[in-house]
Amino acid sequence: MAMDSVPGSVGTSASFALRLGQAIFSSASLFFMSFGVGFYSYTAFCFLVTIMGLVIPWSFTLAILDGYSILVKCSIRQSGILLVIVIGDSVLSILTLAAASSTASIIDLLLRADGPFCPPRLCIRYQISAAMAFLSWLLTVASSLFNLWLLPALSH
Amino acid sequence: MAMDSVPGSVGTSASFALRLGQAIFSSASLFFMSFGVGFYSYTAFCFLVTIMGLVIPWSFTLAILDGYSILVKCSIRQSGILLVIVIGDSVLSILTLAAASSTASIIDLLLRADGPFCPPRLCIRYQISAAMAFLSWLLTVASSLFNLWLLPALSH
Repeated sequence: MAMDSVPGSVGTSASFALRLGQAIFSSASLFFMSFGVGFYSYTAFCFLVTIMGLVIPWSFTLAILDGYSILVKCSIRQSGILLVIVIGDSVLSILTLAAASSTASIIDLLLRADGPFCPPRLCIRYQISAAMAFLSWLLTVASSLFNLWLLPALSH
Repeated sequence: MAMDSVPGSVGTSASFALRLGQAIFSSASLFFMSFGVGFYSYTAFCFLVTIMGLVIPWSFTLAILDGYSILVKCSIRQSGILLVIVIGDSVLSILTLAAASSTASIIDLLLRADGPFCPPRLCIRYQISAAMAFLSWLLTVASSLFNLWLLPALSH
């Protein structure tokens, strides 16, 4: 009962909403980045696309797991599973933050540089993509913290 | 006694070493970045300098606190202080990671661009600065985790 009072941990509807948000924001980030044809000419943009390609299946799988857990009322809270989820979330949140801030700094440099580096139509897309990546990072950190909070209660 | 078995938390010699490492690496990062005269022309480099200017006093203060705590054998472990340290470490580690990855991506772009953007003598300095910032981030995350580990034991 005490465990159920942690909203946002695995198997709650708040967690389902967080995972769904992560999947949506990272898909949007990937979408806006990869529709600009020139993304592969900058390392940071390729990095962002790679990381978003990791975050999307991770969030989607965990969203399905949460949905299943809510529907059949079967708890998937085991110390091992939770540890894997916390570590996975932490690693992905670090990578997402690094990718998002790299992308943001590159966009800033491209906007300042004179010349045909950044047509306005593309730059707006890149900016939206970086903003979506930051939002996805925020939700991943939230998920990670909520699950970390639950971990000591399950261990003993 | 059980608390003393967490190496790296506030008031241990491991924590003192971690703080000293953070102060040294962030000072080195600031040093190598600000001796290149052109750092203020890129937002990411200014951001790195700002964050390093925050990390250095923070790490230095906590190193002194640890040293004092070791020398006079007076425990400074209180739930409130520890919470402030954990939150400060987390915020600073997030900012350091963002600054370091922004700097790294800008350096990568400067190295690829043709033209006089990055003279080799300056670029090496920028690269060393980014590497030092990453090392400082690693140590800050380690400090944060060790202290976070201790937090539940102190709360109740």
